Amino acid sequence: HKRAKVQQVRFDNRGMSLEEEINESNQFYLAHDLAVIYKKPIPIQIVKVDYPRRSAAVIKEAYFRQASTTDYNGVYAGYYLDFEAKETKNKTSFPLKNFHQHQIEHLRHCLKQNGICFVIMRFVTLERLFVYPATPLIRAWDAQAKAGAKSIPLHTIEVEGFEVHYGLNPRIPYLTAVDQLIHYSESQKGVHYGKQ
Amino acid sequence: HKRAKVQQVRFDNRGMSLEEEINESNQFYLAHDLAVIYKKPIPIQIVKVDYPRRSAAVIKEAYFRQASTTDYNGVYAGYYLDFEAKETKNKTSFPLKNFHQHQIEHLRHCLKQNGICFVIMRFVTLERLFVYPATPLIRAWDAQAKAGAKSIPLHTIEVEGFEVHYGLNPRIPYLTAVDQLIHYSESQKGVHYGKQ
Ligand SMILES: [Mg+2]
Ligand SMILES: [Mg+2]
Repeated sequence: HKRAKVQQVRFDNRGMSLEEEINESNQFYLAHDLAVIYKKPIPIQIVKVDYPRRSAAVIKEAYFRQASTTDYNGVYAGYYLDFEAKETKNKTSFPLKNFHQHQIEHLRHCLKQNGICFVIMRFVTLERLFVYPATPLIRAWDAQAKAGAKSIPLHTIEVEGFEVHYGLNPRIPYLTAVDQLIHYSESQKGVHYGKQ
Repeated sequence: HKRAKVQQVRFDNRGMSLEEEINESNQFYLAHDLAVIYKKPIPIQIVKVDYPRRSAAVIKEAYFRQASTTDYNGVYAGYYLDFEAKETKNKTSFPLKNFHQHQIEHLRHCLKQNGICFVIMRFVTLERLFVYPATPLIRAWDAQAKAGAKSIPLHTIEVEGFEVHYGLNPRIPYLTAVDQLIHYSESQKGVHYGKQ
């Protein structure tokens, strides 16, 4: 019967993007007072705005700006969470080209402040999800600059990350994996995971 | 000589909005690895985008959306900070009409998660700044709904808040007041300030 339930969940998720699923999960967490996590709005440079009578202001000219941070942040049981959501169609590794320098630098800064920093990675084809900590991600990113690997092997992610299994509500119960990450961090005496 | 320095600082600040001053202070804190705090972008509903050849995408029609959170959030020494920046020309009290219901609800949710939540209040005419904790703010807001006062008296803010004095760099050294707020919170045994 478990199999049928999994199929059902997959069917329900069809067509939703990873971000939509995370946003919906965040709404669930907020409604149940479990965490307060939001996706940051896209930064926009507004150039021209019309103020028509009797109706809402209309932005007539604006440009996308480069974000300086990651997709999501917020608070969970006293912890600051900060993360990106990323997906790949690859089956054996997660390509580092999915990340931008500014995201890595932001995660590095947040780790220095003892934030809980990670990526929610989805392997689209495999239908597998992981909470992958920022510390090994940054290590791989820095190694890449010195002729290191251009991607993180799935088996490495299985070892260093925390798998998340799709649920009904929330669809992506990532706080369970975050609990494991926090527990692991705090068990590393002297080598606090949140610290570089 | 202290007087002259204060005058200098005031002169330098002339013309900058409270938000600009806070943004600049946040840049200082980030550059010195003291905190990672950003102003959230204004949420925009994008309706129409043009993609001209050889140049950047132009947003041709978009609308302002209601924000669901506060102005600023981020991480400081393992603490989640969440705050609004507000100013008044009043000299004797801070009017509650400066706040919106969604801001109060967001602060309430963040307090439940043990965030460090407050308002940076500026009394423009008095040139005085305070870090005022969310807990008494929410208490005043809720009282107002039951025919309570429509504003918070300055003398109450002096007692319950933490004054911030303008500096040169950062212009608004609000983390000093945040340290006091955290210290006060943690000294309140059993009545953790972060908890409602
Ligand atoms: Mg993303
Ligand atoms: Mg404001």
